[in-house]
This record gives sequence, C-alpha cells and structure tokens, in this order.
Amino acid sequence: MRLTHTRPQRQSPRPGAVRARPLSKNVAMTTFPESHRGLLDAQVATLATIGSDGRPQMTEIWFLYDDGELKLSLNTTRLKTRNLMKRPECSLMLLDLQNPYRYLVVRGNARIEPDDDYAFADRLGAKYSADLRVHDQAADKRVVVTIEPTNVYPVDMRAG
Amino acid sequence: MRLTHTRPQRQSPRPGAVRARPLSKNVAMTTFPESHRGLLDAQVATLATIGSDGRPQMTEIWFLYDDGELKLSLNTTRLKTRNLMKRPECSLMLLDLQNPYRYLVVRGNARIEPDDDYAFADRLGAKYSADLRVHDQAADKRVVVTIEPTNVYPVDMRAG
Repeated sequence: MRLTHTRPQRQSPRPGAVRARPLSKNVAMTTFPESHRGLLDAQVATLATIGSDGRPQMTEIWFLYDDGELKLSLNTTRLKTRNLMKRPECSLMLLDLQNPYRYLVVRGNARIEPDDDYAFADRLGAKYSADLRVHDQAADKRVVVTIEPTNVYPVDMRAG
Repeated sequence: MRLTHTRPQRQSPRPGAVRARPLSKNVAMTTFPESHRGLLDAQVATLATIGSDGRPQMTEIWFLYDDGELKLSLNTTRLKTRNLMKRPECSLMLLDLQNPYRYLVVRGNARIEPDDDYAFADRLGAKYSADLRVHDQAADKRVVVTIEPTNVYPVDMRAG
C-alpha cells in the first residue's frame, strides 16, 4: 500500500493514484463525479463545522442525497447546528468504509431551513427506517441543512 | 438502529447510547479513554484543519500513536501542513470502520517540529511497511505534527 496523503496542490497525482479532477485547475468542481456517486448513498458521513473556539468539530451524521443535493436533518439544540447557524462554512466527508483511501469531500456553506412539520426529517428517516421524532424533546426544532458546495474533492488512492 | 447524532450538550445520553465522559462536565477530558484505546492503532484517521477560506479541510491520513501522543508525518509542501502552520487548531477523528457509530475525536493544537532526518517518518513508516521518502521531492521537508489535545471526545452509539 502506498502512502495515501492527499495532495491538492500537486500538478499531477503520483503514479498509482487515481483522482477525478475539475477540467480546469482554476475552476473548483462543485458537482459529484460519477466515480464517487455510490458514496452518495452511504449510511453515515463526517460533518466538520467550526466551533466557537475556532477548531473544527467533527461528528458522524446521517444524511440524505435528495434532489441532487446533500442534506442533513438537525435538531437546533445540537452544538453542530448552533455552530452552523453562526458559521455556515462546513465540510462533509463521505468515506468508503471498505476502503478508507477512497472518499469524497464536499466543502461549502450550510443553507438552513425550517422543517417544523418534519417533512424532510421523515424523508431522511425513511432511508434509515427511523422516526427522528423519538430523538427530540417537545420544544425542539428541526431544520434541513443543505450543503451548498463551493468545492467537491474526490480522492481515490490505490495500492501501488 | 437508533439515530446516532452526537449530543455534546445533553445532560445525559439517551437510552441505548453509551458514551465515556469526563468526570466533571466542566473539565474537558484530554486523555484517551480505555474504551477507545483500540482505535489508537487504526490504519487511518481523518484530519480536519482550517483552510484559508475559513472552511474545515478534511483528509484521510496516516498516523502513529507514539509515546502516548498522536503524531503525523507531514510534508511541508502539502496544503494541510500549510494550514496547520498558519492555524494550529485542528481535530483528528479515529473512526471504527467496522462500526462508524463508534469513534474518538481529538481536538487540539498541532505542535510542529522538524523531522529533517526522517527519524519520525521512519517510525511511522514502520507501522505501514512504507518508506515515506518515496513520496517526497528532494527539496521537500518533513515535519512531525503532534496533536496536543484540548478535548478528547469518545462516542459509542449502540443499536437501541
């Protein structure tokens, strides 16, 4: 197995590495490449937000690829949700658990919209055969968080 | 499977969730709990740094649990290394690939030290049976990045 560090700044991937790339180095890719589409149906993703101390905060979360977008259903009392309300800059990593050298990182901004009637929460819950209401207190509010990509970065490092 | 969102701000974990916790809510845990020690030997970790655009940047990386600390061997030309040189605030997630509802997040600051003679790179390379020199150009410099934890956050969400 070769070393698997990602190297965004390299002119070309090293031999053995296969990486989808934007057509131009100067245009960030914001669409999901065919090579990594399977990961859009993964069970969990890693969300990174920026905490009040300026550090990245990472959690595993449920997500739904819905109508061409990556969406989360979050309870507004949660720290990650409060982080996003203050600072929408975030990243979502979809990791291939069978091969952690293959993944997709979506960096962008969180668009936060109310989901008071659990319309989206139920759609996401259907993916997991779960009712998200059971995790909420009566006074809690739920929101739909849609990741608006500024950069989509697919990685696939192969054994050399 | 129950919903697996982490809830740092909750008074108590919901039924079905098992989570190691600091003795006091006001004292952040900075040691690695016994429950998650196996993850310190994992093959890859997710490093989150803060990019120049203020967004979290995530990559899978090799790491070594060495002398009680989590350490990385990075090439200084890489974006993640340059991010850490500007902003040492970072997080490292050790994810159980067999059960992504179980993981350890170490938030902290990167202490960066030269490794010009590859002394540490060779120690880390031994974990992976790899020679890190083959990934570097002649003029590249290698550094040891040690995560100095400000907070260690173990998560273990069980099926309910």
